[in-house]
Amino acid sequence: MLFDGPWATLIVRELMHGRQRFGELREALDGISAHTLTNRLRLFEARGIVTRTAYPEIPPRVEYELTELGWQLRPVLDAMYAWGMDAPASAFTNADLPSRPDLVAG
Amino acid sequence: MLFDGPWATLIVRELMHGRQRFGELREALDGISAHTLTNRLRLFEARGIVTRTAYPEIPPRVEYELTELGWQLRPVLDAMYAWGMDAPASAFTNADLPSRPDLVAG
Repeated sequence: MLFDGPWATLIVRELMHGRQRFGELREALDGISAHTLTNRLRLFEARGIVTRTAYPEIPPRVEYELTELGWQLRPVLDAMYAWGMDAPASAFTNADLPSRPDLVAG
Repeated sequence: MLFDGPWATLIVRELMHGRQRFGELREALDGISAHTLTNRLRLFEARGIVTRTAYPEIPPRVEYELTELGWQLRPVLDAMYAWGMDAPASAFTNADLPSRPDLVAG
């Protein structure tokens, strides 16, 4: 599943601003750990959605960029954005429902 | 984040076939645990994306259905589907890249 995990969509959306370094991505994605970002980027690279370019410089410079396949996700993000703009704030609540003793998985 | 977690999209897509019981959903979503499905459905209910209707019958009957807000996710799923149809199989790999000793978070 492409968008498994909360960060996948946000990383792709961030890279739609153009080529970025790891540090820039991490700064833009408030709360993401270096470990999670590294893993996500490696998975996207394996899936052909992102390219990783390492420049032979000191200190080493590494940049990430969407591939054409990555850019083809634009309509998905646009549709999510459009839905989000119309949805009420409650559509993003993480609050659980009050527990229901009658809750029966019928 | 609406689509956090691998099951969210699949549950919504399944409910686009119409009203369903918990057991029917669980059967259609190969590998999902009752615990995960219960939590996801409760979160969607809290977010106004799904309604849960319990019928006063013996044995109790419970059905889940997309709300209008839920149905408005159709363009998101359609865009995901369209992207998935054009993407190569490698776009869905879970294989990691060969480890890279030079991997430097630049």
